[in-house]
Formats: sequence, C-alpha cells, structure tokens
Amino acid sequence: MSSYRAPLKDLRFALYDVLDVEPLFARLGFADANAELVDAVLEEAGRFTTQVLAPLNRVGDEQGCTLDAATGEVTTPAGFKAAYAQFAEGGWTGLTAATELGGQGLPHTVGVPLSEMINAANLAWGNFPLLSHGAIEALKDHGQPWQQEVFLKPLVEGRWTGTMCLTEPHCGTDLGLLRTRAEPLGQDTYAVTGTKIFITAGEHDLTENIVHLVLAKLPDAPAGPKGISLFVVPKFKVARDGSVGARNAVRCGSIEHKMGIKGSVTCVLNFDGAEGYLVGQPHKGLQAMFTMMNTARLGVGLQGIGLSDRAYQNALRYARERLQTRSLSGPKAPDKPADPIIVHPDVRRMLLTVKSLVEGSRLLALHAGTLIDLAQHAADPVERQNADVLVSFLTPISKACQTEWGIENTYHALQCFGGHGYIHEHGMEQLARDARITTLYEGTTGIQSLDLMGRKTAATGAAGLKLFLEMVEGFVREHQGDAVLSPFTDALQLKAREWAQLTTEILERAKQDPEEIGAASTDYLFYSGYVVLAYWWARSVAAANASQHDAEFVQAKLETARFYFARILPRTAMHAAAIRSGAAPLMAMDQARFGDA
Amino acid sequence: MSSYRAPLKDLRFALYDVLDVEPLFARLGFADANAELVDAVLEEAGRFTTQVLAPLNRVGDEQGCTLDAATGEVTTPAGFKAAYAQFAEGGWTGLTAATELGGQGLPHTVGVPLSEMINAANLAWGNFPLLSHGAIEALKDHGQPWQQEVFLKPLVEGRWTGTMCLTEPHCGTDLGLLRTRAEPLGQDTYAVTGTKIFITAGEHDLTENIVHLVLAKLPDAPAGPKGISLFVVPKFKVARDGSVGARNAVRCGSIEHKMGIKGSVTCVLNFDGAEGYLVGQPHKGLQAMFTMMNTARLGVGLQGIGLSDRAYQNALRYARERLQTRSLSGPKAPDKPADPIIVHPDVRRMLLTVKSLVEGSRLLALHAGTLIDLAQHAADPVERQNADVLVSFLTPISKACQTEWGIENTYHALQCFGGHGYIHEHGMEQLARDARITTLYEGTTGIQSLDLMGRKTAATGAAGLKLFLEMVEGFVREHQGDAVLSPFTDALQLKAREWAQLTTEILERAKQDPEEIGAASTDYLFYSGYVVLAYWWARSVAAANASQHDAEFVQAKLETARFYFARILPRTAMHAAAIRSGAAPLMAMDQARFGDA
Repeated sequence: MSSYRAPLKDLRFALYDVLDVEPLFARLGFADANAELVDAVLEEAGRFTTQVLAPLNRVGDEQGCTLDAATGEVTTPAGFKAAYAQFAEGGWTGLTAATELGGQGLPHTVGVPLSEMINAANLAWGNFPLLSHGAIEALKDHGQPWQQEVFLKPLVEGRWTGTMCLTEPHCGTDLGLLRTRAEPLGQDTYAVTGTKIFITAGEHDLTENIVHLVLAKLPDAPAGPKGISLFVVPKFKVARDGSVGARNAVRCGSIEHKMGIKGSVTCVLNFDGAEGYLVGQPHKGLQAMFTMMNTARLGVGLQGIGLSDRAYQNALRYARERLQTRSLSGPKAPDKPADPIIVHPDVRRMLLTVKSLVEGSRLLALHAGTLIDLAQHAADPVERQNADVLVSFLTPISKACQTEWGIENTYHALQCFGGHGYIHEHGMEQLARDARITTLYEGTTGIQSLDLMGRKTAATGAAGLKLFLEMVEGFVREHQGDAVLSPFTDALQLKAREWAQLTTEILERAKQDPEEIGAASTDYLFYSGYVVLAYWWARSVAAANASQHDAEFVQAKLETARFYFARILPRTAMHAAAIRSGAAPLMAMDQARFGDA
Repeated sequence: MSSYRAPLKDLRFALYDVLDVEPLFARLGFADANAELVDAVLEEAGRFTTQVLAPLNRVGDEQGCTLDAATGEVTTPAGFKAAYAQFAEGGWTGLTAATELGGQGLPHTVGVPLSEMINAANLAWGNFPLLSHGAIEALKDHGQPWQQEVFLKPLVEGRWTGTMCLTEPHCGTDLGLLRTRAEPLGQDTYAVTGTKIFITAGEHDLTENIVHLVLAKLPDAPAGPKGISLFVVPKFKVARDGSVGARNAVRCGSIEHKMGIKGSVTCVLNFDGAEGYLVGQPHKGLQAMFTMMNTARLGVGLQGIGLSDRAYQNALRYARERLQTRSLSGPKAPDKPADPIIVHPDVRRMLLTVKSLVEGSRLLALHAGTLIDLAQHAADPVERQNADVLVSFLTPISKACQTEWGIENTYHALQCFGGHGYIHEHGMEQLARDARITTLYEGTTGIQSLDLMGRKTAATGAAGLKLFLEMVEGFVREHQGDAVLSPFTDALQLKAREWAQLTTEILERAKQDPEEIGAASTDYLFYSGYVVLAYWWARSVAAANASQHDAEFVQAKLETARFYFARILPRTAMHAAAIRSGAAPLMAMDQARFGDA
C-alpha cells in the first residue's frame, strides 16, 4: 500500500519564505493567524490526514459505496463515517469560515494546505466535504437571509454537507439545455422535478442532512442559459425556523461504477416534486453557480497536487530501495548486488519531473489562496479588484494544469515501479485511477482552456495576464544583476514576453475567425501553466537563498529549478508551435472524413 | 460498452499503396500471398476478432481469471476457452509459421494486422496466444532437434501455449541477479527450482499443456548475466517421443490483482525441482531470450495500436452523436438543440491526435513486419543483414512509442466522453486501464530507450539510424519539386538532419560522461518516433495521391498529415531541447536531496 507523510517543511517554505504570508494575514485583519498558529494548524492537519484518512484510502477503493435500491440510501466504506465525525468535531469543516457562522475565521490560504493533504491522504473521502464549500459560498453570496440563517451554520459545522446538482444525462457543459423544472408553490418555495447525474456526495450516511444546490428552470424561463435558476433542496425539509422536517422527494436512483475514486459516491438523483427554495433572483442561477464552480475548481486543482505528492513520495522510496543494474558511470552501491534505481538518469528524470511540478504547483495554488483572501479582505478596493481579476485568470490554469500534471505525475510514479506499479498491492495504480477523474469533473481541461482563452482573456483585454506579467517584470527587475538568479530570470522574461506576444497573435487572428480561440485554447493553457511555474521556480530559488533553511534544502530548490528550466519549460516550444499553426489544421477536415466509427 | 470494427480499408492502403507488399511477398518466395489471399485473410481476421473476441472484452474485465488455491489451476473468463478453440481450429495460431510445422506459411507481415485486430478486440484474451510466438522463435533458433520436433508443432497448432519466465521478485530488468537454479539430472534434463513472477498466461484452462521457457542458473554458472541458461519446462512432462506424461513440479502460487487486462492471467509460478530441458548452450540463455523478447516487444507495440484504434472509433462516434453547445463560428446543426461536439476545435484536436498517431503507427508496425520478412527471406545477404539491423533499431521505437501513444490516445478518447468516460458503462476507462500495462511489460519505456540509445545506436555506430535516414533522403529526392509534398518533405528533411545531428552530439558527449546516454535516452526515443511517423505521413500523402482510392480518402490522408506536421511533429522541439540540456540537470542532485519519502 502507498504511504503518505505531510509535506510540512515545503508548505512552510512556500507560505513563509516565498509568499511571506505572515505580514499579509496581519494586514488583512487576521490578527491571530501568525506563523505559530498556522504551524499548529498544519501540524494537526498533517496528523489527522496521515493517521486517520490515509489508512482508509485503500479501504475506500476496495469496498466502494453501496446503494440500497429499496431505500435509496448509500453506505460509505468502513471507517469513512467515523473519520468524518472526527473531522467535523475537530472544526476542520469551518477552518476558513467566518467565526459568526461557527467557523474558525482563518484565511482562505490556510485551507489550501489542508485540502492538499486531505486529497493526498484520501481523495475519495475528501469529496464528501469538498462541495460544502461551494454551497456555503453560493448561499453566502446569493442566499436569502433566512436561507443563510438556516443552512450556513450546519454546513460550516459539518453537520450537513452540500452538493452541486448541475449535470443531466443530455447536458454537462451546455447547461442551457437542462430540463429540470421548478413549479412555484408560493412563498419562494418550488416543486423541483428532474434527473441530475454525476452528483458527487449526492447521497451518503455521513451526516444527518444533505443540502443540494440545484439548477432548474422556472415555468416562464427564457430558453438557454439565461433561463436557469438556482434552488436549495435539502434531503430533509428545513423550515424557516431551522427545524428539520420530513424526507424530501429527492432520491438516489443509482450510483456509478467508476474507474477510480470508488470510495466517493457519484449519484443519479431523481427529484420528484422535491421542495426547494429559490436562491438569488429568478433566471440568475448561472451567476450563483459560477461562485460554486470557481471554489470547486480550485479545490479539484488541489486534488492533482495531493495525488502527485503522494505518488512522488512512494516512487522516491521505491527508487531508493529497489536494486536493479549498475550505474553506467560505475557502481554507486558496491556493497549491494546492484545499485538503487535512483542512480539511473531516466529514473531521476521521472522523479524530478514530478518533484518540480508538485512544488511549483503548490505555489501556484497557495498564491491563488492569497488572492482570494486579498479579494475579500484588502482595504484598498483596487487591490481587491486586481486580486479578483488575477485569481479568476489563474483558476482555469490552476485547475487544468494541476490535474493534467496529476495524471502525468501519477503516470511517472507508477512507471518507476515497473510492473509492480500495475498491481493493486503497491497502491500506485489506485493513485493513477483516482487522478483520471480530475481532468473531467468541474469542467474538463478543454472547458478550462476555453474559460481562460475566452472569458478570462479575450473578454477582458487580457487583464489577468497583464497583472501576472507585471509581477514577473517586477520580480525580474528586483533581481537584476543577481548571478545565481539570472539564468532563471532571463529565461522567464523571454517566455513571459512570448506569452504576451502569443496572446496578441491569437486575439488578432480570432477577429477573422472565432475558431482560432478554441484551436489555440488548450495549448495556450499549458503554455501559461509552464510560464507560471517558471515564475514560481525562479522565486523559489530567490526565497530559498534568502531563507534560514539548511544548505541541503536550499541546494535542492536550486537543483530542482535548474531541472525545471532545462527539461520542463522547453515544452512551451511545442505549445507555441501548435498555437501558431492556427485553426486550419483542425478545422479543414469534414466530419465524414474523420473515418468510420 | 465500446464497439470495434476492423480497419480493413486503412490496412489495405498501408499494405498495398504505401508498402507495396504484393511484389515484395512474391520476391521473397511467398507465391500464394497475393492481394486476393491477403485480403481474404484480413477479412476473416476482421470477422473473427469483431464477432468472437470483441464481445468478450468486457466479460474478461468484469470476471477476471480465478485461481483455485487448492489445485493451482486457473479458470479463464466465460467464453475465453471456446474463443481460443475456434482461434486454433481456424489456423490462426500458425498463420505465419512454416508449413512444415503445421503453419500456413504466410509472411510475418500478414500476422501484424491480425495482432492489431486481436488487441483492439480483446487485449487480455490476446495475451494467451501472444507469447507462443516468442517460444516458437526461441525453440526454432536455439532448441535441440528433439525439442523442435516435440514442442514446435503443438505450439504452432495452438494445442499448447508458451510463456516467458524471466522475472523474479527481486529482478526484472537486471536478470543477472536471478536465483532460479537448474540441477543436472543427466541427458540434458535438469531439476528447475525457483520462483518466477509476472508470468503472463503462466497457468490457464485454454490448452492441454503449457510450455514454459525459463531462465535459470546452472550450478557452475558465472555470476551475472553471462551465467544464465534457458530451459523448456512443460506443465505436463513431455518425453522425447512427444508423448505427454505426468504433471511437472511447476505450480501457480498466486495471481496478481491488476489495474487492467483482468481477463489475462499474471502468475507467480513456483518451480519445485520441475523437469526442464536445456535450450541452446549452457550460460547462453540471454541470447535466446532476446529472440523471444524482440518478438514480444513488437507484439506489445501492436497492443498500443489496437487499443488506440478502438478508442478512436468510439470517441469519434460519441463526438458525432453528443450534442453540446454551439460552434463559435455559428450553428452547424441548427435543426438540433446543440451542435455535435465534433465541431469544436479542441475535440478535433484530440481526435486528430489519435487518428494521426494510429495511422502513422500502423505503418511503422507493418514496415517492421516487412523487415522481418526481408531479414528471413531476402536472397541477398546484404539485404537480409540491413533489414535485420533496421528492424532491431526500430523495435524499441515501435514498442515504446506505440505503447506510450496508446496511453495518450486512450486518454484523449476518454476525455472526449467527459465524465461519461470515467464510468464502466462506455468501456473507455477499460481501454485506458488496459493500455497502462503496455509501457511496463516486456521492458519499460526507459529500458527500450536505453536499448535504442545504447545497444542499437552507440554500439553500432548508429547503423540502424543511417539506414532509416537513407530511406528518408531517397524519398525526399524522389519527390523533389512536388508542390503537394514539399511542405512535408521539407519539414521531414530538416527533422531527419537534426535527428542525425542530435545523435552525433549525444555520442560525442557520452565519451566524456556515460550518463549522457541515459539522460538523453527517453527524449531521443520520442524524437525518433516522431520523425519516423513524419516519414510515414509524408509517404502516406504520396501513396494516397498515386492511389485509386476515392477523393475523400485521399483528402483525409492529406488533412491528417497536415495536422500531424502542424501539431504533433513540433513535439520534437521539446525533446531536442531536453536532450541538449545534457545530464547535469538530472545527475546533480544528491539522493538525499530528493526529499523525504
């Protein structure tokens, strides 16, 4: 079975040395969130995830969830319920929620390492509390006062969990097609009827109630995406005084048999005139949904990092233990029958690929966390606005790249095990199967790419990109003439300028042909991701040099950065060439000529 | 469930229009192997694989194989045994074996499409007959006359199957470490004792006997790889007159629980003084093993193509059926609620990636097939020798690239399905799980890369590369001034020359530091694969233009080639940059600095 230890040292480096969060938290009014407290939280989170959740990871995969077809009730794998109770009791569900809602009032940034560790320890389990965050955000921003009063506290305290009910059999991305309808019953109450699929944590035995946030159409709804409204539909009805009543008419019809995340339940939910309450304005459901989705997307991005880190730790251990063939440059462990495979350059290539992507992604994710805190708490409205623009720009990059890298990283880590990686015993194949969902749910990589290229770039005059490039130029200026840094800052600056140039080229071409947006999108997303990580690697080198960390740690950051710039950043050349080849090679072929299917 | 149809049209194009095999077969003495006969074989193979094997693919995944721990006997999934009987009865096991052994005496090349179709239809099932080929080759080339007499015919006729027993718990790649020993019992008979793991088809109920080819050490064996001998150890003992006797002391101790290919059995085999017969000379087992392995490696390469083609067909069907969002350039199916997703450029990018890799790989694999026929049957010894050198060079490229692309292709195809790809129902996730083994067994991608860079390039003065580059230059010369072809031949020539240049650079650097070989190897392998496919795509365009095929088919080849050159070939830039960055970024880091595991 694969093991997991919490990466506390690197998390601390990222938070304090690179992102310098302590003064930031103080400035944003989180008076208590000093390094001492944050450290204590990280350590406790490390203990909970490694000791309680990690041992249940394989159990979840082997047992899966089971549906009692007669009652529509779902049983989670052995140990999941007790772990969840401990999680809620420990106050983890409300770590970053406001104290007036029963939360602990810590910065959003502090929740990021918690999520990473949960995902590394037990991704499937982590999906049960995951979507509560989105439900909380949606209700906080768009719910009526009584809804906030009644639903938020139990969600924050983890007594209830939330879901996002968007997808239907015939519509995923294209929510304008949805058919679930809501008939008014008076007093903002509606009868919701329809079938929703792929509902994560749609039914389970962990909590006494489940709060579904459901997209549906009112009788007078305009056609398409502008006719969608959002409803809160609890499993057990909830009165305006907060009292929980009868079972609502929503029922789990079946659960999916999936490639992985078997411990997580994926439900078909049948709403049969279920009592629901309108959230926000009629026909304005999409806006509230985006609130939920952005939260969920950053959360799924963290799944990629968590899985990657666990995969790395296990591959590294195996590469140090497994003895196989001698180094080409002479024996490295002459007292043993063969050398550990970590001496072989191709094994190092795989390990360093994972290491550089994990540690770089960690900074991308934590930086996004700080931007959310800034967007919510900065005193200066311009700073708030800029943080919001930048995190909106980084969200699709973070979600898509971190999950695609999660697939790549679990691939490399499994590959380090040779044939042993393919059998259940070592747990590596579970990580690979679990990772495979992350580029699909909460918007596929293709959808993230369109969001980045369309809504976040073309539609904003590349506002987010400009903010990021300013950070890059500022960093480069700050380190001008630094001999250790210049190999990194020189390369970074070149790539950042090419990034801006590519953006201009695409937007220019798109004026002639709108298909240029979609044709460039995925390569543009990856290009962006690699430059963003180059920035964080350059900053990591600078921060490590300026830090009090031991020489080995500082040296490891320098060497990993060198690897990243030598071996990973050149991927941008391939993406730039693909972008510049334009839409024609994709669009020329008539549908019929793709072949027989 | 995923469906499959035999790609007969493209196979015919590859065989007749691109590779022009009909005159080749005639020249090599295969008098009967004209297009009419080969077509009949392809059609019948298409019928058998699609009608008999394909429906069992999901059954195999769901049921798996089961071991009776009390008897050590393995039961295969329902229908596997009957399908195998039909396969053997139809003469498929001996399709390309010599007629004097009971085979059909067809060119090796004709067996290649059969393997591709078997792998597409049911990879797990295909693993039962797969390793018989290697056993046949090893016995034909190295067996004593009585062994050939006794074992070859039942293997060719499919009454028995073969295995390759190499791996032990502590040694995979590094066979010099193996511990299985063989004690002489007189008369070339030995008592073989040891534990072998990962033995594909090591035990099953499809045939009355199983012929294990086992690597073991004689008592006087020198240490390391030069002390390994090869033995044939049948499940039921076989006398020199061919009569089958008592059960031998080899027993399946357990079977592995794997990520995929669940219908295929992977055994731990315990040899407990089992009667075995020395094959070839003492201590010369590795040579015979390489005979088996090369055959098996090309066979595994075909698994990547088969899975990719099946994945493509299903993704294409889904992309034409699934309606979701409108094209950015205006509705393409205005009569429907949304456009089929095949209109979206990013979906096209995924489909065309798979299509171009599948059709290109098919030519790489079939070309390797013709080289094997040439190496065995050409009248001119120089031609035989060159064919052997070239196929040896192409074998690691073919095995590793086709399987890595198999993983990539099943990834893209699953991605086209969105969340639906992740659930069992559509069968796409099975293809992805099945594909994951192919870059591991019969030598990982890293091992193929070292074979290519070391044994097949550094050790031969790049003899294979030179032969391939001559083909490229010849083709380019032949089409000089051809306006349709020049975009392809110009780019191909540039890349081919860079390939030669990179080879020189690596070999030059390796003189100073042997680690440069391993550091460059995997990127060099991919670089090679992409140039090889560029050659086949350029030749496909030329062949399509010169053919009698319908205009749509010709146009599709042209458009796919354009896509390949615009969107896939630029990957070489990334690999070239990685190669040129040298060994230092990989080797600098001390083992301890990789982190905590």
